[in-house]
Amino acid sequence: MKILLIGANGTVGKAVAAELGTRHEIIGAGRNSGDLRVDIESLASVEKLFKEAGPVDAVIATAGSVHFGPLAEFTPEQYAIGLNNKLMGQVNLVLAGQKVLNDGGSFTLTSGIVTRDPIRYGSSASMVNGAVEGFARSAAIELPRGLRINVVSPNVLVESLAGYAPYFRGFEAVPAARVALAYSKSVEGAQTGQVYEVH
Amino acid sequence: MKILLIGANGTVGKAVAAELGTRHEIIGAGRNSGDLRVDIESLASVEKLFKEAGPVDAVIATAGSVHFGPLAEFTPEQYAIGLNNKLMGQVNLVLAGQKVLNDGGSFTLTSGIVTRDPIRYGSSASMVNGAVEGFARSAAIELPRGLRINVVSPNVLVESLAGYAPYFRGFEAVPAARVALAYSKSVEGAQTGQVYEVH
Repeated sequence: MKILLIGANGTVGKAVAAELGTRHEIIGAGRNSGDLRVDIESLASVEKLFKEAGPVDAVIATAGSVHFGPLAEFTPEQYAIGLNNKLMGQVNLVLAGQKVLNDGGSFTLTSGIVTRDPIRYGSSASMVNGAVEGFARSAAIELPRGLRINVVSPNVLVESLAGYAPYFRGFEAVPAARVALAYSKSVEGAQTGQVYEVH
Repeated sequence: MKILLIGANGTVGKAVAAELGTRHEIIGAGRNSGDLRVDIESLASVEKLFKEAGPVDAVIATAGSVHFGPLAEFTPEQYAIGLNNKLMGQVNLVLAGQKVLNDGGSFTLTSGIVTRDPIRYGSSASMVNGAVEGFARSAAIELPRGLRINVVSPNVLVESLAGYAPYFRGFEAVPAARVALAYSKSVEGAQTGQVYEVH
């Protein structure tokens, strides 16, 4: 398979490339690095990405920013960061990709554990992750030509714990290599409309 | 209790006012009708609403628009309609309300059955509802002064079926009066961070 991986340079992206790269051709994309560059917030930039990549069988998104901060001080503008980037960035990949992916191809998006297991300062992350999961469940029943879509919801990563531990006390961190298996299940399996929780 | 009800003129809003109005004082608000007027998309308008309403013990939102359309033709601008209105409109009520609600007060927001049980043309509704539910679960653990927040997720309403039936074939529609009970449970109970599915 030819797999377009957006966020290839991140911790999850690298683990996904390691897992799937032995069996498939990976085209890595990112904002500032990778084989191809893309600003996922812009549908035009995403359309350009697909043109440059050529026909692909799978799209994996492990990219997306959200703002973290106390609910008492959150502003609509700070919520917009996550809505524009992690949510609509991933949605843009589906809007553009549904027209050009090879028949039977798949989208695999990324949410996160805080959808259902919230943390302090995480109201935007919980919002955006819930939106990504709801969107994917619904898109799954409308995608044409056997296209599929799933979401991977990772716990905090062992590899990220150095920076995030104070926000995730008591969470049982998972290695990125274990999270990568869920992307493999989505891409190489046949399910659609699923949220794979690696918690 | 003094209850601020946004969307008081809608089908759910009227049923909520009928259920809770016998025991509590209801201040109805809406874009074009009600005791008070508000544009929930604007945080400034929501802040003005709270000033005009004075101290309240509960905020109920039964308002919010989303766009419906085929995934194949959906645009980012059409997703923005629901994100700005049904999502951020309800979030704005929490951002402003957390500072002025009486101690122990509650927010009750509205999502909908398609979060987990999607329909054709409903990718924006599923997205927005998932976002509202994720946000509320997270906000629940950060709200100060004993403030609470829950979400009611109604099935399609018996009263709305005339217009929506073709999109909800096989769904077991519920009367608005049954949905109103979930708002009563949220406002008059003591739970927080819950999604009450009236399915």
